[in-house]
Amino acid sequence: MKNRDASHTPVTVIGLGLMGQALAGAFLRDGYPTTVWNRTAAKADQLVAQGAKLADSARDAVVASPLVVVCVSDYDAVHELLDPVGEVLDGRVLVNLTSGTSAQARETAEWAARQGSTYLDGAIMAIPEAIGTADAVIVCSGPRSAFDLHEPDLKSLAAETTHLGDDHSLSAVYEAAVLSLMWSIGNGFLQGAAMLGAAGVDAATFAPLAKKGIETVTGWLPGYAQQIDDGTYPPLDATIDTHLAAMDHLIDESEFLGVNAEFPRLIKALTDRAVAEGHGDNGYAALIEQFRKPS
Amino acid sequence: MKNRDASHTPVTVIGLGLMGQALAGAFLRDGYPTTVWNRTAAKADQLVAQGAKLADSARDAVVASPLVVVCVSDYDAVHELLDPVGEVLDGRVLVNLTSGTSAQARETAEWAARQGSTYLDGAIMAIPEAIGTADAVIVCSGPRSAFDLHEPDLKSLAAETTHLGDDHSLSAVYEAAVLSLMWSIGNGFLQGAAMLGAAGVDAATFAPLAKKGIETVTGWLPGYAQQIDDGTYPPLDATIDTHLAAMDHLIDESEFLGVNAEFPRLIKALTDRAVAEGHGDNGYAALIEQFRKPS
Repeated sequence: MKNRDASHTPVTVIGLGLMGQALAGAFLRDGYPTTVWNRTAAKADQLVAQGAKLADSARDAVVASPLVVVCVSDYDAVHELLDPVGEVLDGRVLVNLTSGTSAQARETAEWAARQGSTYLDGAIMAIPEAIGTADAVIVCSGPRSAFDLHEPDLKSLAAETTHLGDDHSLSAVYEAAVLSLMWSIGNGFLQGAAMLGAAGVDAATFAPLAKKGIETVTGWLPGYAQQIDDGTYPPLDATIDTHLAAMDHLIDESEFLGVNAEFPRLIKALTDRAVAEGHGDNGYAALIEQFRKPS
Repeated sequence: MKNRDASHTPVTVIGLGLMGQALAGAFLRDGYPTTVWNRTAAKADQLVAQGAKLADSARDAVVASPLVVVCVSDYDAVHELLDPVGEVLDGRVLVNLTSGTSAQARETAEWAARQGSTYLDGAIMAIPEAIGTADAVIVCSGPRSAFDLHEPDLKSLAAETTHLGDDHSLSAVYEAAVLSLMWSIGNGFLQGAAMLGAAGVDAATFAPLAKKGIETVTGWLPGYAQQIDDGTYPPLDATIDTHLAAMDHLIDESEFLGVNAEFPRLIKALTDRAVAEGHGDNGYAALIEQFRKPS
């Protein structure tokens, strides 16, 4: 670990949307010499007032620092900005925190290697307001040595930083996996709120009861994970057959209350398939085999 | 509140599946005179060894106590057992903890009223092993006075007991709503585990990262609930447009990795509809309007 008190790596942040501004702001707060660049220069005003240097061009921004962080709307924007200035990336570390797919990450890693750049593909699991706090997580994939060298710098952005592996595609898969889980929770809550709302119970009453249910399932997940990795599924909470019976109630209830029943029907359809394959006596984790199949 | 040290209400538990046995066992541990009955008498053996009285018939079981708790496989089983002995329910409190729909709860409440019985429809949010512990929740709907009278008895079964309202149907709606949320979390985790598994990351590595994502969303839910009740949806975490772009990645990633993409596609389809209705600039809670529509 380098001594951050003695000298800070100069850093460049390219892309000053809400997230990019938050990243540059966090570097500045920690005393990093910070160069910024954005297609619309006005987005840099507040950062410049805080001490950031606004580069005249993307090229100048890259040249200014050995560590270049890019966070723009998508990978097309990454290439539009950096393809014309690729040669100045030679010898620099590029950390791309733009959201995308694993295929895009892999392709960008190959492109960066051709420029002589060391590439880390990362994902931010935080809203802009959480950047620089204990609530922010940044995961990276790519060469371990580059991650180890710059992890102290990334810690300015997120208290929790994780290197997922050398395969550049892992950050994108991880981001999609966690977002999938987060949307699933949000949608599960909205399904319940819609049902209870139709029965005259407000969402604020549901929220604390929902929290209890979330905590219960969260406690089961390490056990599910163990079973998934082991490939055996003895019932931990209830058998899939027991779950299936209650899923019928969920569909009936949703239809009776006149709310959307698409998620309930899909929940049951997947479970029906697991039972059809002989998993009725297994625990819920046996459903992993359905999730592993292309659809 | 009655003084539980002085005298315990005699209780009857009808139905001795895993859950019924756990309920009777919890009453016995707390010193309640407990009568039990089950179609297959052998299931009572262990409880009798612990001091339970095995009734000779469902009728005798009902007659034995002013408080009758029934927990069987479904409402058809409730009626099959209790319809022939309905008249002895007169003057007793019947607490039905069998899982079912709100329509079944309402119908059973009407039937119980015709027998002169006071009826509470309840739902258990716990696995049998958690009965009698701080991890168990029992919700009831029906006359408040009956709930207040017997809440101290129900506390033997679950540390957390909640009266949802006088409308008998509320417990069933609540149970379905919470189960929907719990399955959504389980499935969101399995989707992510299948994706990461296809990329070579084991589920045990995903579990702690998943937990962090769950905690983040759980922190957002009270804010979503407030917006749902208020009917206004300023973005709290990100706009629906921003979520939608990342949902495309989830679908691409799932398809690329060769795992099931049905949940990702449904997540996006619902969100597409919200955007089509002009909610792109709103926060995630605006999706409630899609969940409220029959499908």
